[in-house]
Amino acid sequence: MISEVRHKAALAQEAAATMNRLSTEQKNTALLHMADALLTEQTAIIEANGLDLARGREQGTSPSLLDRLALNGERIEAIAEGLRQIVALPDPVGELLEKFDRPNGLKVEKIRVPLGVIGMIYEARPNVTVDAAGLCLKTGNCVVLRGGSAAIESNRKIVEVLKNALAATDMPAEAIQLIEDSDRASVNEMLKLNGLLDVVIPRGGASLIRNVVENATVPVIETGAGVCHTFIDGSANYGMAEEIAFNAKVQRPSVCNSMETLIVHEAFAERHLAALAGRFVEAGVELRGDEKSRRLVEGAKPATEEDYRTEYNDYILNIRIVDSLEDALDHIRHYGTKHSECIVTEDAANAERFVQEVDAAAVYHNASTRFTDGFEFGFGAEIGISTQKLHARGPMGLPALTSTKFRIYGNGQIRG
Amino acid sequence: MISEVRHKAALAQEAAATMNRLSTEQKNTALLHMADALLTEQTAIIEANGLDLARGREQGTSPSLLDRLALNGERIEAIAEGLRQIVALPDPVGELLEKFDRPNGLKVEKIRVPLGVIGMIYEARPNVTVDAAGLCLKTGNCVVLRGGSAAIESNRKIVEVLKNALAATDMPAEAIQLIEDSDRASVNEMLKLNGLLDVVIPRGGASLIRNVVENATVPVIETGAGVCHTFIDGSANYGMAEEIAFNAKVQRPSVCNSMETLIVHEAFAERHLAALAGRFVEAGVELRGDEKSRRLVEGAKPATEEDYRTEYNDYILNIRIVDSLEDALDHIRHYGTKHSECIVTEDAANAERFVQEVDAAAVYHNASTRFTDGFEFGFGAEIGISTQKLHARGPMGLPALTSTKFRIYGNGQIRG
Repeated sequence: MISEVRHKAALAQEAAATMNRLSTEQKNTALLHMADALLTEQTAIIEANGLDLARGREQGTSPSLLDRLALNGERIEAIAEGLRQIVALPDPVGELLEKFDRPNGLKVEKIRVPLGVIGMIYEARPNVTVDAAGLCLKTGNCVVLRGGSAAIESNRKIVEVLKNALAATDMPAEAIQLIEDSDRASVNEMLKLNGLLDVVIPRGGASLIRNVVENATVPVIETGAGVCHTFIDGSANYGMAEEIAFNAKVQRPSVCNSMETLIVHEAFAERHLAALAGRFVEAGVELRGDEKSRRLVEGAKPATEEDYRTEYNDYILNIRIVDSLEDALDHIRHYGTKHSECIVTEDAANAERFVQEVDAAAVYHNASTRFTDGFEFGFGAEIGISTQKLHARGPMGLPALTSTKFRIYGNGQIRG
Repeated sequence: MISEVRHKAALAQEAAATMNRLSTEQKNTALLHMADALLTEQTAIIEANGLDLARGREQGTSPSLLDRLALNGERIEAIAEGLRQIVALPDPVGELLEKFDRPNGLKVEKIRVPLGVIGMIYEARPNVTVDAAGLCLKTGNCVVLRGGSAAIESNRKIVEVLKNALAATDMPAEAIQLIEDSDRASVNEMLKLNGLLDVVIPRGGASLIRNVVENATVPVIETGAGVCHTFIDGSANYGMAEEIAFNAKVQRPSVCNSMETLIVHEAFAERHLAALAGRFVEAGVELRGDEKSRRLVEGAKPATEEDYRTEYNDYILNIRIVDSLEDALDHIRHYGTKHSECIVTEDAANAERFVQEVDAAAVYHNASTRFTDGFEFGFGAEIGISTQKLHARGPMGLPALTSTKFRIYGNGQIRG
């Protein structure tokens, strides 16, 4: 018997053939229908979500996870508004990227086309179900959704609502598929569905992403892990450096673009580190330091090799003192995950060298690493932040969900 | 003990940190040194190649494989000339792709950067060793080469010559690494070297590529398989259709962009198919057909489902008669590998529909599919033809060997 995963991916692949013929207007109409339907059906959605929440509470799920899972009228309104924002974004499909004539008379065009069918693998956040569907459909893709089993009732109802909404539009309802099988095996089957899935995008914690990267034979866009650094150079403006470092750690420690290690030039450290460290401690940040910094920062624990490699996503910060820009670059090369890195300095040559040499998706001079984000970059919604170098790197806007195609027009050319 | 693969990939990764600082001129100088050294050392290279050839003959290697392996003065001159052509190509690294200011004053730039370290896995063609090294170095990448064991003596000498040539330049000799371990396990180790290899590119036959796609955890650019079709519409110009179909099959059947199945509209078939089939038979092509075409084509065997899915790379052709454009599109959707597809027609609406709806890297109107090639598209040398939708699709020029990086310039911005 054919599995649920294979069956639904095949339905999506079939629908994909008609998706790339839809105009921008047809796609936007469908997205607006979806947004309206979420509001009309919000009572039913909140009811289904209640079942997930009750089961979660029974199973002793942590309050923070329950909070991520919970839906109410306000949150559904925000999710619907997300779809309307996607409507407002320019449609990348059909964009002419290159056009050239060859000496033999062939006319070649390179245009943007949908990727085809995108597999989304994520955790128990029902908002991702709608966001991902909206972004994929806007770019003419079909989507196979596999959310965490803790949100299954919510996702089932949401996808039912979205598919019903599509029935009144030109977009095939089969463009959205939800995998309901909660067994981990259904994820692993998706990962090997070459020919039916064109790409898999994981969104979630480190272990979810590791499983996808390690087991997928379908091409993957890896998103996630960030061990981000802020380097305060000897010449940094003290006030600016303090604000940037504090913001990078404390404004939202749980996200991938927050700072995990503060690197400080010794000239700066001697005059200002104790004060800055005090501010972190006041904000509830646990400090771990190298030998030099522990002489200046009272109460800091020793930082281990392992600490320097860890994405805490929490109120914990490593501090390291260096005596040159080179040492800071070395540390970042050695321990960084190539996500977001920052130098705070008034020295233009040091800034340029840092920005040039650091190999990361986003490199900052005098600004917080927290800006690595699709909304902050002005891309509108984002499908995630790519931490790989292939296809897309950093915050991914709609073009990251497209591929290209060459169209070649001739008048009988053959190869000699 | 650290393995050869891990050791050499780490050396390459270390060298990669300095590679992106090289100017175009420094890189071109290094490439010209490499070209000169190949000619200066050609006697030694031909000698080493002789050892591979002798071993191949002893082991009963086929004449066609021995021919691909063999080097002589003329071939080495052609390989060196290939490097000089790479020098003449524009350097994509450093190109400013996007630049925008945000309302908060952040200045964002998106620029092209090298991928980092590229793993090349290929068969016993020593020319690929030089081509791949040249293309990777021009784009500021380091390369870890793992060629077929049948060419190991040739590759060892070639890489020695290239690395010695680099010693006199600004480019680190460690930018080129050759894996000498001939065990298959060394390939499989490369495929899982996340963090040390940024991408793996396989070049070779179906089984080599399948092994890479199925086992790699490092991101892959898949190249290869093409089950390409030519559809002759009812309104096609007969002479043009015959030339295009004949060229697509016979000019070089062994390559991925050659035709495997000819689809013919019945209006065309009744008047012209017998004559066209005769020309194929005369050229030594074995014909396999559906029921309708076998009534018109004497001696054609029945084509099976399996035949329609097979990349023959040989003098074998399937023929299928359809009574509509829809049926042709259905056949291609069902059996095609999304490589190169062609319609021959004088009907502009049918042409546009075909070019729009067929999902393939290259879609042709009135020209042979044999043009899907980096040289033919004017990209200069090519690293391969991507058959995936992620990152690059179709013939890959130098930009396919790059990634991007965001540089963000602020004056103290923090996130609210």
